Amino acid sequence: MHTPYAARREKVRRVMYTRGIDALLVSHAANRYYLSGFELHDPQFNESAGRLIITADGRDWLLTDARYRDAALRLWDANRVFIYGADAPAQMRRLLRQCGSRVGIEARGVSWHFVRELASSGSGLWLEAVDGLVENLRCIKEPEEIAALKKSFALNHDLLHHVEEQLEPGRTEADISWAIERYFREHGASELAFPSIVAVGRNAALPHAVPGRDRVMENTPVLVDVGCRLDDYCSDQTRTFWVGPVPTADFRRSLDLTRQAQQAAMQGMHPGVPLAEVYAMAYKIFETAGVAQAFTHGLGHGVGLETHELPTLSPRSRGVLMPGMVVTVEPGLYYPEWGGVRWEHTVLVEENGVCVL
Amino acid sequence: MHTPYAARREKVRRVMYTRGIDALLVSHAANRYYLSGFELHDPQFNESAGRLIITADGRDWLLTDARYRDAALRLWDANRVFIYGADAPAQMRRLLRQCGSRVGIEARGVSWHFVRELASSGSGLWLEAVDGLVENLRCIKEPEEIAALKKSFALNHDLLHHVEEQLEPGRTEADISWAIERYFREHGASELAFPSIVAVGRNAALPHAVPGRDRVMENTPVLVDVGCRLDDYCSDQTRTFWVGPVPTADFRRSLDLTRQAQQAAMQGMHPGVPLAEVYAMAYKIFETAGVAQAFTHGLGHGVGLETHELPTLSPRSRGVLMPGMVVTVEPGLYYPEWGGVRWEHTVLVEENGVCVL
Repeated sequence: MHTPYAARREKVRRVMYTRGIDALLVSHAANRYYLSGFELHDPQFNESAGRLIITADGRDWLLTDARYRDAALRLWDANRVFIYGADAPAQMRRLLRQCGSRVGIEARGVSWHFVRELASSGSGLWLEAVDGLVENLRCIKEPEEIAALKKSFALNHDLLHHVEEQLEPGRTEADISWAIERYFREHGASELAFPSIVAVGRNAALPHAVPGRDRVMENTPVLVDVGCRLDDYCSDQTRTFWVGPVPTADFRRSLDLTRQAQQAAMQGMHPGVPLAEVYAMAYKIFETAGVAQAFTHGLGHGVGLETHELPTLSPRSRGVLMPGMVVTVEPGLYYPEWGGVRWEHTVLVEENGVCVL
Repeated sequence: MHTPYAARREKVRRVMYTRGIDALLVSHAANRYYLSGFELHDPQFNESAGRLIITADGRDWLLTDARYRDAALRLWDANRVFIYGADAPAQMRRLLRQCGSRVGIEARGVSWHFVRELASSGSGLWLEAVDGLVENLRCIKEPEEIAALKKSFALNHDLLHHVEEQLEPGRTEADISWAIERYFREHGASELAFPSIVAVGRNAALPHAVPGRDRVMENTPVLVDVGCRLDDYCSDQTRTFWVGPVPTADFRRSLDLTRQAQQAAMQGMHPGVPLAEVYAMAYKIFETAGVAQAFTHGLGHGVGLETHELPTLSPRSRGVLMPGMVVTVEPGLYYPEWGGVRWEHTVLVEENGVCVL
């Protein structure tokens, strides 16, 4: 069976070579999965399902505990599967010492505790923080990844076509949220990409609203921000609806400006354009209209094996757009008095611009 | 409204005092929630919803980003809500410096990256790893927590009463798993406590089986390990069923020994009994029967705001049983050739023994 993992590890190895790293310990779950196909999720926040050691000589290790032995052996050369026990960091330290002395560690992907255990005195290891090494590869999607993303977004579009009829006055945010989850799961999604946001009225002003007991009412906005995971890949889209015959002037104007800002950014997106400039293109629409202070978050983020990944579209972003990036474009305007509007498309950067997923 | 958070923080403060810590930075999501009621979940593995600073002088801080401002202000004195921006670690460093010089950090709850940023040279802060400080309080459940756990387990029992009729030959593990999730969610659970295990035949031998396309067949075991979250608290139970008229002798004997081991442990559980000894009581049944090598994991773990928390029942566990602990008792025997058996009750330790939740 063709799998993409070995080729991805070769790309990692090339970057390691230029940085003089003998071995890279991969701990971040999505990075581990991207490079091996082994376990996309860890069982719990403070429990690892396993790690990889990418070695300079190409004889990479898959490390895990006895629970995952069988899953590991389905994927990996048995001679290079390392089963650790209760004293995992010390066992990994001995294995890493065989792989070299300069060891790259994903500093955002490991706990301080783990590093303290790994780097006990006299370990002979030089640990180097190498965040973003795998994430930077992941932000350029391969054709198979784009195909999976298109499937995930297709289901998300199907959901959004049906969601407006769910927004009946009297239904709670939590009810609608569960109807959305059922739709995703019963049409092929393995899980939600993130907890759905269904925010009625003033709750729409909270960028992080949790669906609760508030009910849809006539003449209110409802903000719906949802995503599913299908074939391992996440989707993420937001729409804001008006329930009732005639939206208020505030709502109409905010929706209009939000869509204008989104269009301005999407039209300006081409390979080579600085990420911060994409943000600025949307911001400028709001600034000109005198509402920029109601736009309180970044413009977008990468989407792939995780809902939030590189690149980020914010005023502080470095780097430029590149073909193969998949990124949300999600301007919004928020008013605690009445609610708010957000509209989110996710786009694939292509040679001549972007295509909406 | 009566909330338990302030009293819990006083308990933390007392432990901090005995250890000479000026301020404790709480980052672990369940610990944060336990001490403040603020956000039980972080949005994604590498994204924090916020942190607490527990101070020696009792004027504690809630730190978060702008997305959560509103949620924070509903819970906390506005003068003690700290909203950080893009340069969060540096901003936290300045705030911590006002709170003292010896700062406790949950080393398992923070990334190496975060600590490197927090402890930049000349910060004047002495960071001390203090893992388990809050977790050790959490392992003794308060009456309100026990009430929530009882509700969560009651729903789990309801599910298990219905699950056997779901195990019809021809249905896939994934179908049954989704039916279980729907049952939980449509009867009051906010989410699963952990991904359900529905393992047919030989899959039952994998302690970490993922429900897939394998179908229930006549004359096979099916292992079901499920839990829900209700009123914030997790439940966790396992049963192993035989599908078909007559179980094999291997299955019957394994089930019989597993239940015996579970009974032996539960009967021996009283306040003051060493945790490792509880494991040994179950192990001894298997050892005497000559099957101990098929019992490949620990005997149990605490359950509460998280599915896996303290205490742990394993040969390496230190400490003793105490009233108010809630812990699983889940012996199992696994045979790659035909499958396996696990049976899991969760018990509350009381003055005179245990009561099954």
